[in-house]
Amino acid sequence: MTQTPLASWPDAAAHLIAVAAGRAPADMVVRGGIWVNVHSRETLPGYDIAITRGRIACVVPDARAQIGPDTQVIEAQGRYMLPGLCDAHMHIESGMLTPAEFARAVIPHGTTSMFTDPHEIANVLGLAGVRMMHDEALIQPVNIFTQMPSCAPSAPGLETTGFEISPEDVAEAMGWPGIIGLGEMMNFPGVANADPKMLAEIAATQRANKTVGGHYASPDLGPDFAAYVAGGPADDHEGTSVSDAIARVRQGMRSMMRLGSAWYDVEKQITAVTEQGLDPRNFILCTDDCHSGTLVNEGHMNRVVRHAIACGCDPLIALQMATINTATHFGLEREIGSLTPGRRADVILSSDLHDLPIETVIGRGQIVAQNGECLIECPHYDWPDTARNTVHLGHALDATDFEIAAPAGANSVTANVIGVVENQAPTKALRADLPVRDGLVQGDGDTCQIALVERHRATGGVTNAFVSGFGYDGAMAMASTVAHDSHHMIVVGTDRDQMALAANRLAEVGGGITLFRDGTELALVELPIAGLMSDRPAAEVAASAERMMQAMRDCGCTLNNAYMQHSLLALVVIPELRISDLGLVDVRTFERIPVLDPQT
Amino acid sequence: MTQTPLASWPDAAAHLIAVAAGRAPADMVVRGGIWVNVHSRETLPGYDIAITRGRIACVVPDARAQIGPDTQVIEAQGRYMLPGLCDAHMHIESGMLTPAEFARAVIPHGTTSMFTDPHEIANVLGLAGVRMMHDEALIQPVNIFTQMPSCAPSAPGLETTGFEISPEDVAEAMGWPGIIGLGEMMNFPGVANADPKMLAEIAATQRANKTVGGHYASPDLGPDFAAYVAGGPADDHEGTSVSDAIARVRQGMRSMMRLGSAWYDVEKQITAVTEQGLDPRNFILCTDDCHSGTLVNEGHMNRVVRHAIACGCDPLIALQMATINTATHFGLEREIGSLTPGRRADVILSSDLHDLPIETVIGRGQIVAQNGECLIECPHYDWPDTARNTVHLGHALDATDFEIAAPAGANSVTANVIGVVENQAPTKALRADLPVRDGLVQGDGDTCQIALVERHRATGGVTNAFVSGFGYDGAMAMASTVAHDSHHMIVVGTDRDQMALAANRLAEVGGGITLFRDGTELALVELPIAGLMSDRPAAEVAASAERMMQAMRDCGCTLNNAYMQHSLLALVVIPELRISDLGLVDVRTFERIPVLDPQT
Repeated sequence: MTQTPLASWPDAAAHLIAVAAGRAPADMVVRGGIWVNVHSRETLPGYDIAITRGRIACVVPDARAQIGPDTQVIEAQGRYMLPGLCDAHMHIESGMLTPAEFARAVIPHGTTSMFTDPHEIANVLGLAGVRMMHDEALIQPVNIFTQMPSCAPSAPGLETTGFEISPEDVAEAMGWPGIIGLGEMMNFPGVANADPKMLAEIAATQRANKTVGGHYASPDLGPDFAAYVAGGPADDHEGTSVSDAIARVRQGMRSMMRLGSAWYDVEKQITAVTEQGLDPRNFILCTDDCHSGTLVNEGHMNRVVRHAIACGCDPLIALQMATINTATHFGLEREIGSLTPGRRADVILSSDLHDLPIETVIGRGQIVAQNGECLIECPHYDWPDTARNTVHLGHALDATDFEIAAPAGANSVTANVIGVVENQAPTKALRADLPVRDGLVQGDGDTCQIALVERHRATGGVTNAFVSGFGYDGAMAMASTVAHDSHHMIVVGTDRDQMALAANRLAEVGGGITLFRDGTELALVELPIAGLMSDRPAAEVAASAERMMQAMRDCGCTLNNAYMQHSLLALVVIPELRISDLGLVDVRTFERIPVLDPQT
Repeated sequence: MTQTPLASWPDAAAHLIAVAAGRAPADMVVRGGIWVNVHSRETLPGYDIAITRGRIACVVPDARAQIGPDTQVIEAQGRYMLPGLCDAHMHIESGMLTPAEFARAVIPHGTTSMFTDPHEIANVLGLAGVRMMHDEALIQPVNIFTQMPSCAPSAPGLETTGFEISPEDVAEAMGWPGIIGLGEMMNFPGVANADPKMLAEIAATQRANKTVGGHYASPDLGPDFAAYVAGGPADDHEGTSVSDAIARVRQGMRSMMRLGSAWYDVEKQITAVTEQGLDPRNFILCTDDCHSGTLVNEGHMNRVVRHAIACGCDPLIALQMATINTATHFGLEREIGSLTPGRRADVILSSDLHDLPIETVIGRGQIVAQNGECLIECPHYDWPDTARNTVHLGHALDATDFEIAAPAGANSVTANVIGVVENQAPTKALRADLPVRDGLVQGDGDTCQIALVERHRATGGVTNAFVSGFGYDGAMAMASTVAHDSHHMIVVGTDRDQMALAANRLAEVGGGITLFRDGTELALVELPIAGLMSDRPAAEVAASAERMMQAMRDCGCTLNNAYMQHSLLALVVIPELRISDLGLVDVRTFERIPVLDPQT
């Protein structure tokens, strides 16, 4: 079953009126449920929903007049009828899935609207990549709105991305049908300093009457925060403490509270509502980043709403935070986010408002999932070669590409080492004395090599340095083309031959993650779309990712979320030490530093 | 003092940021107040507001860094700092004032944003008249948004307006800078029956991403209401009972609750919040219609908020209903409705949240009123002759124009008489036996003559009939060019010579209201703009209107709101009997009926 194009409310109005008036039969009637009304914040037993042309025509105590011979009748049997859930800010690429496969994974969890920022592909393929994500989003049977990425590169001058996003790109994208606003404005120092490029992107969005996404990742709520708010971002999902949440809402932003695969920012912040009694209308739930394993094993927005309820939030308020609050924020409250006339017929049937089992999902007036199974086709975009062929190494690599030469005659050196810290995004800037053999600096103990392999422009560039904390032993190497935010290739290894094997392998398969030990590939996650995403089903990708994590463990790595740590080592906006195509970067000073101490 | 053009947020952003960061001085700082935060629904003592370029740069505990040598410092002295009040639906013409003079009257009451539907002038001057109101609105120092009138004529086929509004007019107006949406869609039977013209107007508004105003003036909450909601109106101010309010909110509309000069619809409906505990975010306060006397003697939105509080509503919730709820409804929450960065600096200082004394009003960063006195110029639009010369009678009238001939030889006749009912908008369809003298039917007792004098196209047409209920005695006549909704001229009198004098007098002065007795004009309200509005101050207009009411009393009329009753006698959408330029109309059947019973 595939979806027909959705008529706009004005285009459907005459039909909606005819059905609501009882003069024409509905396409579908959901009968005898408890209407979860997120406008009035009530549960109202004994209602029917009549649907036509993919939209709700009426919600009435008795829709018998709307049932004709061809009307599909769904018996709610006294269950709750909820609006489809909205994820207010998220990155599809985090699931390592294409929009279509991401949609297929989350529809059975009741997510029918997503606000997605294709920031990762923007770094690899620029505006053209954003357009591809946007175009695949638009053909899905649920609502995927696109936020135009604002910050590529994330750290101008400290890294080279595949493409850059300009204010002109932003202005152009604001005219696309699926663009809902500007993606998270991560360059908060830039906004606070009135950087003309950042302000031009915000201005283009505000002039298009669209929503500017925020990202203020600092605990400082003083003048820098005030200046950031004055710059225009309308929401923020980077808050972690209740003070963060309250400050944002008081200043007229919406506080987006996230529960992602590795984000746990709801529990503390929601006390602003549950304990301090603030008006809940400006609090919104989102995921930001979900791995495919989380989608397969735990859920999506249903998981977040359940969690909010478990944190003590009234279920109706928690549901508002994942439906009408989100819709209002993006100027879509007449389109999604509630079960009321004219809106898209996105309905969940659930027998319990606390555990929130997602039993039936209706999207745009069709049953799209039943008891955890997706019943609708999520069409694939025809990704062009430019998107499927993004790993450009310039030449096949060999062990010599990963050599770090010692100063002439040195027997040992002192090196600046990236120190991975378990369960933390920030790294430590460590120093280590390392041995020299055959004129080359060697890893030692837990310190092994890391390389940033340029893959966008085939420069053949390889930046080499050292990293500690993974606990690898034996001759191994792991490589990934998911390498936030510029998404070159990060290779971590104890052996230069294995590093070359791993890098070349990713060039061969078009990107992904691989792990080699002793010349054998232990695991491979193929991510052929931009080196970031698979167009295979979530369960397959989750299984490959699980095999990869097992392979990492087999090589001695016991770190929690070890793969995520690997993929963040080039994120030159988070302290203390990172690697980029331009060298080793001290993110405390935003300066490049040498790998080897010049004194040695 | 006059206002400078207001920069948009993106145009002001660099300045706002500089002030918020403490790098540049503010134009104004309001210091040491209690921040009434309508986002979080809190009162927060000890805050300062820094303002630049007419917008709020920051709200912080200490704005000393924002004070430079030229910064105007306002000491709040511990008073409440509230957002300027919003009137969500209103007709400026009801005050018989131009937008400039209306603004001047309400600014001292703390109203800084108005959503105005110039429905009356649309009937007289069509789209051009709407544009004049819109243009005068745009040059005011406070925010007057224009709703494009949807229904002129109100009753197609039963009356002839000066101009008609078409879907093409609506589509054109959606591109004007001050148009915020479609004015109240009064033709609710048309919407429920999917009238293509009404749906085309709604569609043009929805496609422009603007708000469709509703007007469902019926207690029937069955299929007709469902069909109306399905048609697209986003709000409604015609509810009177708590069931009305709840039904609208549940169906995803916003319930606008009005306290006008003659509307008292807050007290019952607000119990949906105060007693039934519904989420208050979808309830909004408005006035709909305020006479100049109310503005001068009682207030405007401050009166409505006070009343809501007196009805038991929490003051912060009542204030939300007149600030952020309204702003959100019209997609303006990043522009008005709260005291937060980027928004227009519309601030009220008040020492009490219950009585709500309006002590200081700041509009766009300037003090616009202090202790009830308006301190800002409200510029007048240069109204063209077409707007100042709208009373076209075709020829000077005399007594013969008001003759009602009896059938040949009749000594008495039975007539259909419009029966005015005190304190009710609907009239009664009465029948009366009336005497005949010199072949002409005469008034008798409380039954006198009424005439609808065509004034838009100079046809010379006069429709004559009978009315009862005013209680006039002596030889008198009263005429008015305010004659809802088509605004021809209504003349009511006991004497045909006085009727001619009154009608000719209004033609001479360009419209208004006059009352003649025994050849002498007892009172005159000049309304030279479209025959609807004066460009004199509200206090003058209110004083003239009061003299008019005294003159009506002097002629024996004891009816409450007698002038309003007079002006509504041509409103051919409210039962039971009305007069139009096309004849006597039975609004129960929407048919024209004869003045004299054919049997007699």
